[in-house]
Amino acid sequence: MTSSHPRWINALTKALSLPENKGQNVFQIATVENGTPRVRTQVHRDIIYPEGCPHLPVILTTTDVRTPKVSQLTATPRAELAWWMQGSQDQFRIAGPVRIVPRPGHPAANAEGASAALKRLDEQGFDWEAKRRAVFDVMSSHMKASWCRPPPGSAMESYEDAKKWPATVPRLGEAVSEEDKKNQEQALGNFALVLLEPEEVDWVQLGVLPNQRTRFVRRDDESWTEEIIVP
Amino acid sequence: MTSSHPRWINALTKALSLPENKGQNVFQIATVENGTPRVRTQVHRDIIYPEGCPHLPVILTTTDVRTPKVSQLTATPRAELAWWMQGSQDQFRIAGPVRIVPRPGHPAANAEGASAALKRLDEQGFDWEAKRRAVFDVMSSHMKASWCRPPPGSAMESYEDAKKWPATVPRLGEAVSEEDKKNQEQALGNFALVLLEPEEVDWVQLGVLPNQRTRFVRRDDESWTEEIIVP
Repeated sequence: MTSSHPRWINALTKALSLPENKGQNVFQIATVENGTPRVRTQVHRDIIYPEGCPHLPVILTTTDVRTPKVSQLTATPRAELAWWMQGSQDQFRIAGPVRIVPRPGHPAANAEGASAALKRLDEQGFDWEAKRRAVFDVMSSHMKASWCRPPPGSAMESYEDAKKWPATVPRLGEAVSEEDKKNQEQALGNFALVLLEPEEVDWVQLGVLPNQRTRFVRRDDESWTEEIIVP
Repeated sequence: MTSSHPRWINALTKALSLPENKGQNVFQIATVENGTPRVRTQVHRDIIYPEGCPHLPVILTTTDVRTPKVSQLTATPRAELAWWMQGSQDQFRIAGPVRIVPRPGHPAANAEGASAALKRLDEQGFDWEAKRRAVFDVMSSHMKASWCRPPPGSAMESYEDAKKWPATVPRLGEAVSEEDKKNQEQALGNFALVLLEPEEVDWVQLGVLPNQRTRFVRRDDESWTEEIIVP
């Protein structure tokens, strides 16, 4: 068979590239915690594919491995994200299993949902740790420093306490002082990839009249069905 | 005791009023469906309070009562919303019990989480049906027409089918033709309020350096605690 990109990912990529959607590279990702819903804003970082599998995209975002979303995703390794692009009035809702890629040896690495694309990447020998380090390294030095703070969500005495934390962490290979080396090691240790493998996509186009809505479902791990539905 | 607005709602209202947040009146609301997370974008419509209770805000959005979120909220009457204001780089995550206010007699009316503010409003004789009709009536005639389509999410043959649906529905009391009356009755019948009663609020300010994050929790239905936490 000839595999190709599902139509929704072309639509997503096109919408992202529109000038009116500039800066709309964030989505809200929902998880479950003890049977109740949780949701927070995340920055979109990348879309990756197994070699020769344009029909199996994986959406990549990142986290501090100490955040509650990681334990939520360890217990229930499935998420849905809602990506609203205000400029073009497109909404993409994308649901599927999730894998966390923490530092080697961290227990969150064991948890994941059933997943065709990630399994294919594993079979192809994809180097997850290299990817984790590469994504870490392209983050700004300020962003890197955010992973060597005390645990996210833990109590502080005052907002001023934050001024004692490292403000920047250098790129890998560029730490010179002992303090930079220590901070970098801690930041990299807390840094994790979050991989959402799309299985269901609901695309609503409020920018066209009459509005359009299309549901895409991945079947048998190899192809996508597409259905026009009522908005 | 003297009750007053919790600090987070003043912050939310102020953020919404900033010119750089113009149009940021949407949030993503997460629910649970059979143990898995679901999330979609909703438009913020109003904040209501029981009389004399500025500490008990309720966030109001709307829905078509035939959407899956209604059955999800009937089974698990609790939600979290994430409200990202791109301009000022503020995120408000707001979690709590939810009530659906459908047309009188609709079964979704029976479901709700434990809820102090809504209970107070009930005790004060708040007229939910009048509120539902008032919110319906301020929607545009195009928006009103969206509730007399076939059920949201149901299959269609072609995008063109949407052209056969009513394009507008008049305000209450202004329907003249039999068709307008029928459409209005159907639209109003499918229209429901969604009320989220905040119990936990997580406010992250990425627009200030160092970043600030504050957690607010409602205690004993009467007051809010406030804690500075690590972003």
